[in-house]
Amino acid sequence: MHVALAGGVGGAKLALGLSRVLSPEELTVVVNTGDDFDHLGMRICPDLDTVMYTLAGMANPETGWGVRDETWTFMDSLARQGGETWFRIGDRDLQTHITRTARLAEGASLSAVTAELCAALGVAHPVLPATDDRVATMVRVADGLLAFQDYFVRLQCAPRVEGFDFVGAETARPTAAVADAFASGRVDSVIVCPSNPFVSIGPMLAIPALRDCLAERTFPCVAVSPIVGGAALKGPAAKMMVELGIGPSPVAVADCYAGLIDGLVIDEADAEDADELSDSGIAVLVTGTVMRSDGDRERLASETLAFASGL
Amino acid sequence: MHVALAGGVGGAKLALGLSRVLSPEELTVVVNTGDDFDHLGMRICPDLDTVMYTLAGMANPETGWGVRDETWTFMDSLARQGGETWFRIGDRDLQTHITRTARLAEGASLSAVTAELCAALGVAHPVLPATDDRVATMVRVADGLLAFQDYFVRLQCAPRVEGFDFVGAETARPTAAVADAFASGRVDSVIVCPSNPFVSIGPMLAIPALRDCLAERTFPCVAVSPIVGGAALKGPAAKMMVELGIGPSPVAVADCYAGLIDGLVIDEADAEDADELSDSGIAVLVTGTVMRSDGDRERLASETLAFASGL
Repeated sequence: MHVALAGGVGGAKLALGLSRVLSPEELTVVVNTGDDFDHLGMRICPDLDTVMYTLAGMANPETGWGVRDETWTFMDSLARQGGETWFRIGDRDLQTHITRTARLAEGASLSAVTAELCAALGVAHPVLPATDDRVATMVRVADGLLAFQDYFVRLQCAPRVEGFDFVGAETARPTAAVADAFASGRVDSVIVCPSNPFVSIGPMLAIPALRDCLAERTFPCVAVSPIVGGAALKGPAAKMMVELGIGPSPVAVADCYAGLIDGLVIDEADAEDADELSDSGIAVLVTGTVMRSDGDRERLASETLAFASGL
Repeated sequence: MHVALAGGVGGAKLALGLSRVLSPEELTVVVNTGDDFDHLGMRICPDLDTVMYTLAGMANPETGWGVRDETWTFMDSLARQGGETWFRIGDRDLQTHITRTARLAEGASLSAVTAELCAALGVAHPVLPATDDRVATMVRVADGLLAFQDYFVRLQCAPRVEGFDFVGAETARPTAAVADAFASGRVDSVIVCPSNPFVSIGPMLAIPALRDCLAERTFPCVAVSPIVGGAALKGPAAKMMVELGIGPSPVAVADCYAGLIDGLVIDEADAEDADELSDSGIAVLVTGTVMRSDGDRERLASETLAFASGL
């Protein structure tokens, strides 16, 4: 069995690739919950939704969030009536949030609700929230702390970041399904998907028991760099690295995962970083990492699995 | 100032007529909350919404509930995923429920939220929930008790009714705005709109302090019969009267309001009931009570106000 750690768009793309070359018994996708938040009275889990919608084949390829063939009646109505519209929610997407919120209010765990939503959408591969406890990513900026969605969506990542806090992570526990997967002895490899190391993978690694699973691993763990040619394909990872004074480069990505990964998959555009990575003891696979088609996703998934199994 | 007591469709139509002949200072609409319920994690207030949407000019004339120019993406998505679809909620309508639920969760009263929703929709006349406390209409049937929406929507009023319970009514208090209106000494008349006497007006009259306002009135109170020619124009009022062995007729309507009204407006189709009503001490206005157009609504509103002021 292979375990993929994934955040939003980039992570979901590789998770989709992995799901096309591995059966549901061979792949478990563990997803970040650090950017979950309550909005308009609903619990919204952006990364879980992106992974779930992507695996269900209903993701919106243009936005990277939400679903395709969407309508916006709710949002238009909210706008006309002066409601909060900075976080866009389509009418189909809304059904997920309403159903999740109602089930959580009934006492169901996020794991259970996610499994129900996946079943309803026909997602066969296990998609597991990293934790059922609340972990909230906070972005440290000059003025203090910003809630993640305030930073990410409302302020469009404009403030200069100084660091991150993961409120609740210290006492959070991995979900039973995640803990069971690692305790099973059946993990052949862990793939850290090309998600933002700080705010997509970071909140999961801030959960002590989950970090320990990687730190004390008996299986290879490889990451796929979300930084290609000095930029992030999507999102603020490169901007954050610049602001934190550590990149942006695959080397900086490897530093984020120091002690937790054995290998890094980097793009051909970054081939010159291979030696520095190797010298620091990180195995390197240089390949095309930009996933434009399902073919790209499958190929990168297969190459990454083969790379991990060779370590 | 005139106070209208209203339930759903029929009540909303007369409330609209009244709003076209009275200014916001001259009319207060007090609305039933007995069929409010929690569904999919949201607080849904069908009668408040029907009145609000009707006064805002956005009601759906075909269904009698919801809004016009509606889309159904949320509901279609819910249906595809095996969710509960017996209670139909359109995408525009959803915005009301989500906003209300979020504000109530923040601690706002139903009165405050209703005022906010009305302001956002441009409804100038005060629309007041009868109470901010929870009152739940339960329908007594052979097997026991049915929650109102189970009876009304899910079971399409099929079960034979034996009576009604209004859980919470005994300890419920009228909202401050309703209490203030009656305490002001400014009430010129109360109009009981042509709503179901059992499940639309009944839950309000089950609130002791509100019932006392009518029982101890110093102003005329007149009702408009929702029964026309032995039938209800909309809803189960006539069916309920048959099942309870008391009608259906304007005389049965007057019996429902015994001691609380001074006059009853009945349709020309029921002119023969006028004598029996008069003999029992109820003043009668015979006129056309079927409201097909805004002209009908205005005319019935004006005639009813004139009738009340003459008592």
